[in-house]
Amino acid sequence: MACVASHSALDVFDGAKDEGFRTVAVCRLGRDAIYKALPGLIDHYVDLDDYKEMLGEPVQRKLLELDSVIVPNRSMAVYVGYEGIERSLRVPVFGNRMMLRWEERTGEKNYYRMLDEAGVSRPKTFSGIYEVDRPVVLKVQEAERTQERAFIFATDGDDLRRKVRRALEAGTISEATLRSAVIEELLLGAHFNVNFFLSRVRRRLEIISVDRRIQSDLDGYLRLTARDQLELGMQPSMIEVGHEPATLRESLLSHLRDGAEGSGGVREARAAGADRALHTPADGAA
Amino acid sequence: MACVASHSALDVFDGAKDEGFRTVAVCRLGRDAIYKALPGLIDHYVDLDDYKEMLGEPVQRKLLELDSVIVPNRSMAVYVGYEGIERSLRVPVFGNRMMLRWEERTGEKNYYRMLDEAGVSRPKTFSGIYEVDRPVVLKVQEAERTQERAFIFATDGDDLRRKVRRALEAGTISEATLRSAVIEELLLGAHFNVNFFLSRVRRRLEIISVDRRIQSDLDGYLRLTARDQLELGMQPSMIEVGHEPATLRESLLSHLRDGAEGSGGVREARAAGADRALHTPADGAA
Amino acid sequence: MACVASHSALDVFDGAKDEGFRTVAVCRLGRDAIYKALPGLIDHYVDLDDYKEMLGEPVQRKLLELDSVIVPNRSMAVYVGYEGIERSLRVPVFGNRMMLRWEERTGEKNYYRMLDEAGVSRPKTFSGIYEVDRPVVLKVQEAERTQERAFIFATDGDDLRRKVRRALEAGTISEATLRSAVIEELLLGAHFNVNFFLSRVRRRLEIISVDRRIQSDLDGYLRLTARDQLELGMQPSMIEVGHEPATLRESLLSHLRDGAEGSGGVREARAAGADRALHTPADGAA
Repeated sequence: MACVASHSALDVFDGAKDEGFRTVAVCRLGRDAIYKALPGLIDHYVDLDDYKEMLGEPVQRKLLELDSVIVPNRSMAVYVGYEGIERSLRVPVFGNRMMLRWEERTGEKNYYRMLDEAGVSRPKTFSGIYEVDRPVVLKVQEAERTQERAFIFATDGDDLRRKVRRALEAGTISEATLRSAVIEELLLGAHFNVNFFLSRVRRRLEIISVDRRIQSDLDGYLRLTARDQLELGMQPSMIEVGHEPATLRESLLSHLRDGAEGSGGVREARAAGADRALHTPADGAA
Repeated sequence: MACVASHSALDVFDGAKDEGFRTVAVCRLGRDAIYKALPGLIDHYVDLDDYKEMLGEPVQRKLLELDSVIVPNRSMAVYVGYEGIERSLRVPVFGNRMMLRWEERTGEKNYYRMLDEAGVSRPKTFSGIYEVDRPVVLKVQEAERTQERAFIFATDGDDLRRKVRRALEAGTISEATLRSAVIEELLLGAHFNVNFFLSRVRRRLEIISVDRRIQSDLDGYLRLTARDQLELGMQPSMIEVGHEPATLRESLLSHLRDGAEGSGGVREARAAGADRALHTPADGAA
Repeated sequence: MACVASHSALDVFDGAKDEGFRTVAVCRLGRDAIYKALPGLIDHYVDLDDYKEMLGEPVQRKLLELDSVIVPNRSMAVYVGYEGIERSLRVPVFGNRMMLRWEERTGEKNYYRMLDEAGVSRPKTFSGIYEVDRPVVLKVQEAERTQERAFIFATDGDDLRRKVRRALEAGTISEATLRSAVIEELLLGAHFNVNFFLSRVRRRLEIISVDRRIQSDLDGYLRLTARDQLELGMQPSMIEVGHEPATLRESLLSHLRDGAEGSGGVREARAAGADRALHTPADGAA
């Protein structure tokens, strides 16, 4: 069981050991300490200077010799790249490697389209401010800190227009980044991440776990009272830093399962006999 | 071990299996998918078109033949009804079935009275606005969405009077629903649900678990910054959708146990030799 | 395995039993109920009228006869006192008893200095308002409720000066308590408590668990919408009442481990062959 040593690899390796598998950590140099800290967790290390080497002949040969099956994670998708994983990787990948790029928000294959084709309801998206007829959130890359996204909440189109103008004037966003912004219907509701697994062996859809994301600085900012927040007037970032476990009401579990079971994605996967682990952010679904 | 298949029935069945019991799911048609998803969880299904059939002869006979003991849950209490459970149900019920109606907020038997008779302190309630002398929360059924409750927070009687007038004018509440409103002292503090079990066999009170409720839309609304909340100006609903696990400070655990142990309810139950599972919302108790 | 029966003693006793140790609860009279509630948890009780008796000859002799090793907790440090634990306690203490007083915020040995000497980054502290050049939080003992601390958040020095003057006029803080106030750089970010253990036997640093603190009244206050908070205008207290479990992103776990591994404290402890359990509040670290 091989995995790029990052993201949720600890979980994968821990689970693999529980099931009696031998493990291979594909590790960028200097990132092995946390895996070595747990004796007996990793059987083989494949060291890389750069994740792109994963597609090179020596690494692939090594992984094939070890009889590896790769469990893909988000780090692998991002650092190695969809193209390479789909076309150049000869090592078997657990699940359907063609699904990985559907986790993107943009492009021909994107998660909005996947949800739509599967018949799973999701927040409406708007192609422009002129279309907005309800409370929305605009998600846009910041002008200067390009790794960060700004979130602009607005009650309607006029409000959004006013706030976007203000942000442009303040320079936090730019006309250029605005072009790739997403405008999403604002759906309030409790946030849950629900982790599904479609088992080919057991011929069933499993709900593996439910958790809730913790975001920084947002989490710290929201621990200030409203008065302190307003006086400080900061704009918190929303970077995922951890999770809390949670349970869902039994009736919602039932809903989720029925929704996922009935969705085209699962039907097709069943028809195709494919195994697949879906991680669906069910934000605002409750 | 039989249970109406809803609410916390998954927990009950899972625990029953851990202890080696055979299980019976009393299931409204079409609600069995989530129980069937876990192979080996349910030994027998008793299908219903309507929960009221649970009091009918065929269902009762079936449950008795299976030698069932029913673990009651909130769904059963609400859908089957107190009267029927107390008078017409011949199947044995785990715990004291006469306690179920004490979970109501109103009526002769209500949870305020139970807490008072047990000597457990609780937020003071006021019979009218004229009595209010401190920060309070008024809980009232909404005028139009009658399944929803509106919560009006006020610093004192004058403030409450003003806000109630405003809500009446806006039409969110009505004079009619206002008559069955509850005015409760506003006690701030961390929220915990503490689950107790009074074991007749082990002759002791057990604290089984501690969790915290997640409410929708409230949870999503509170993940917005104060500025965004004020600009959007929405009034979030407070529907329970899930829970988070939590632990309590050791000194508070001790307090809780002493309070529950010393309470009249437990003393009487002990005297009567009764088994009973109490679910006490300890909101604001910390 | 002996422990002052308070704080996190339940965890210690439970863990000790898992490992097959016999347990001794050093218990102030009337505080034993919660430990007796779990049959088989405690093998011996040593009763005290006052925690200071722990340094007296009879109690020490008893603990030595039982061949005890004391696992120190915060209650023991506070109630028995650093001086006594360091000089008069003849019973072996698990870990390095000279470390206990480093958990204080003030004095020659304090946690800021420990973090600095270990090379762990932490919020900057300011010796006076005149030095403040960024958003800060001032932590000060309240004037009347002397067990409580007031927290004053400010965007810069001028803002802090204005707010301190206002609080002095309102009488919530006093010139006297202000002298021992701490002014800390305000670092926003998600809050996590990370529990480390440096194992001499396994020669490694372990991350045992990650949780997040729940504070009262703060937690209840923050469950009100911004509008309700502003209308009520209360100042919530921040008393620790419980915890929620959490997980950290794998990359942050790695960071934490590297930081802790590389820190002087761990290096020295290794050199000295010392065992030690560190509880480091990693607030704002994420």
